[in-house]
Amino acid sequence: MNESQPSSLPAGFLWSATKAGIKASGKPDLALALAPEGATAAAAFTSNQMVAAPIIIGRQHIAASDGRVTALLINAGNANCATGQHGLDACVTSCDTLAALANCRRENIFPSSTGIIGVPLPAEKITAALPTAFAALAGTEEAADSFRRAIMTTDTKPKSARATVIYKGRSASIFGVCKGAGMIGPQLGPPHATMLVYLFTDIAATPAQLREALGPAVEASFNSISIDGDTSTNDTVLLLASGASGLTLDSDTTDAFRSALNQVTQDLAHQIVDDGEGVTHVVTLHVTGAASVADARAIARTIANSPLCKTAWSSGDPNWGRIIAAAGRSGVVFDPALVSIHIGDQAVFEAGTRSPHFDEAAAHAVMLQREYTIRLDLHAGQAETRFLTCDLTHEYVSINADYSS
Amino acid sequence: MNESQPSSLPAGFLWSATKAGIKASGKPDLALALAPEGATAAAAFTSNQMVAAPIIIGRQHIAASDGRVTALLINAGNANCATGQHGLDACVTSCDTLAALANCRRENIFPSSTGIIGVPLPAEKITAALPTAFAALAGTEEAADSFRRAIMTTDTKPKSARATVIYKGRSASIFGVCKGAGMIGPQLGPPHATMLVYLFTDIAATPAQLREALGPAVEASFNSISIDGDTSTNDTVLLLASGASGLTLDSDTTDAFRSALNQVTQDLAHQIVDDGEGVTHVVTLHVTGAASVADARAIARTIANSPLCKTAWSSGDPNWGRIIAAAGRSGVVFDPALVSIHIGDQAVFEAGTRSPHFDEAAAHAVMLQREYTIRLDLHAGQAETRFLTCDLTHEYVSINADYSS
Repeated sequence: MNESQPSSLPAGFLWSATKAGIKASGKPDLALALAPEGATAAAAFTSNQMVAAPIIIGRQHIAASDGRVTALLINAGNANCATGQHGLDACVTSCDTLAALANCRRENIFPSSTGIIGVPLPAEKITAALPTAFAALAGTEEAADSFRRAIMTTDTKPKSARATVIYKGRSASIFGVCKGAGMIGPQLGPPHATMLVYLFTDIAATPAQLREALGPAVEASFNSISIDGDTSTNDTVLLLASGASGLTLDSDTTDAFRSALNQVTQDLAHQIVDDGEGVTHVVTLHVTGAASVADARAIARTIANSPLCKTAWSSGDPNWGRIIAAAGRSGVVFDPALVSIHIGDQAVFEAGTRSPHFDEAAAHAVMLQREYTIRLDLHAGQAETRFLTCDLTHEYVSINADYSS
Repeated sequence: MNESQPSSLPAGFLWSATKAGIKASGKPDLALALAPEGATAAAAFTSNQMVAAPIIIGRQHIAASDGRVTALLINAGNANCATGQHGLDACVTSCDTLAALANCRRENIFPSSTGIIGVPLPAEKITAALPTAFAALAGTEEAADSFRRAIMTTDTKPKSARATVIYKGRSASIFGVCKGAGMIGPQLGPPHATMLVYLFTDIAATPAQLREALGPAVEASFNSISIDGDTSTNDTVLLLASGASGLTLDSDTTDAFRSALNQVTQDLAHQIVDDGEGVTHVVTLHVTGAASVADARAIARTIANSPLCKTAWSSGDPNWGRIIAAAGRSGVVFDPALVSIHIGDQAVFEAGTRSPHFDEAAAHAVMLQREYTIRLDLHAGQAETRFLTCDLTHEYVSINADYSS
């Protein structure tokens, strides 16, 4: 896992995975997580108008249970989106089977799906595999690892991150797991995410406290990344708190918890872009001096999703003209004469034209690095944002154009 | 030229082109057009906040001259954008030189540039080449052909279209020329365009009449296409009327003129997409049953610029899930359960799920054609739009990632 200081897994959770036969590859594709004593929950879902069956059902369950979750039921290889009543029925049937095994109500099951859109979900494969998966549930590193691998689709690496919340000698853990490499341009709605993100913590917290903490954390992480800008129908972020650590989220521990949560969500968001489909360069867009954060974000998002910027980044081409051109079509009104652009430490654009300090070879050298920052200062205000994105390569086209009928 | 029934060139105009040494390829890169007796004009420019020097100067000239143009001065190979005061000076100097040759005022010269952003325009190369180009001006097919070739950049073909306006035995001609293959996502402002479009007609009309005719024609053509969605800093559409035909634009001839103008602008817009960078499939998005044209256009534009849709089209993959997912992130509120999608004559999506008539092989066969239509019916109203776009291929990435320092 991508964790510099491995800390323990949060108490109060068990994980497992198995092969239900949904992925064509035959790899593990069914993942479970169980909070035997239950967990409080806050969730954020995609803002796409077209949403998958598990999003519809998951929203209903979170509302009906007042934010109480006992188990997660996740399949990869099929998004169960645009599958009509059959898809809703398949989701409910799967939840019912797991609820019987977990001895809880249906609305305490939180379902997720990721994979191809529009293909009927074979619920019978899930219900048949559930007893085995349920029997394998464990709170071990191995079990957590199998969970994070089973939810992968075009991901090349499993993704997780951890942080510890410490207050007066007591501590709680946060363990975050996610998947996602394409159709990534999350725009999560306020109670906000085919990026799937699961955040497990053993701090004790109410659903309302978790919602308050999750909103800003999501805004600064998953809502600030883009691979291809194609916001998915299935994006989900779920934060679960078991309370098993003995540490409680209150006015004393809020700062430490939010800091640890941000550390985990930003680490996971970075891992998603870094493992994006065909990605060879990870670019942080740092827009500063904006009149508003909304302006800064609109400019960053337009540059992040510009095919001309993304293709130039793939070859390390310091073609700053494409950057200022993308900013100019963002819908934000600004004066180009006030704008400055740096690629890494290299000034490339200022006072409406090429910087007198422009050194093409030096800028190109910056862009040969796997990861670097492009800073655009509007000199129009105090607001700023950071947005993480990537290049567009032949490999992205190959992955997404691959078709055999 | 792409003209099924070649008609004569409009009277009152002369064209020429020469090599000024701006294009690295050494091909012709300086194009002139002259209306010896002057022409009335209407222009539309890019809505990008970052605009090139010739856009700034061209707007000033059209305003200062009350829509009177004597000559066009166009260079390819350098956009003269983000070039600061030097770029403005270079543009003015070039215009002054041509004004002296054409014996007109500077504001009767209309300048355009297309090519790389941010590189100083060598005005001395233009002023040196102008006398030769001016001496070569002619009203011949050969001269018109040299004009349309010299303005090309990554275009693989010259682009032009013609139509004839006939009223009671008298006639006028429209001859349109354009260039553009990348950075194409025009969003032209009301007096509205590195797509460059020049429309020449010999009907007699006031600048106000030309503006009234140009707006709707641009909206239904150049503002309804996208190759990569990257709205350029230099887009320009210019309509010039010499009056030399003897036919006058009035209440009797307006319908015939607008019809002919629309025929030319839509033909040119199609040629741009068809020759788009790396394009192997041209797709018409026909969004119907929308609550408003704005809704229909927002959905069409989002699908048109979706990397996942565009890559699927490159291989003829009937992955309609990506189409409804893109529509869902367009910002338009709609009920997916009411939406139907057809690829050509093949129903692929209805009632929130895969159409019972879905025939993957048949849909794939439609998509193997060079050109086809995808229709998305929202069943939410009476408004509709047609939007022309294309696939995203390895070749597009190669063209735009090509960099050698």
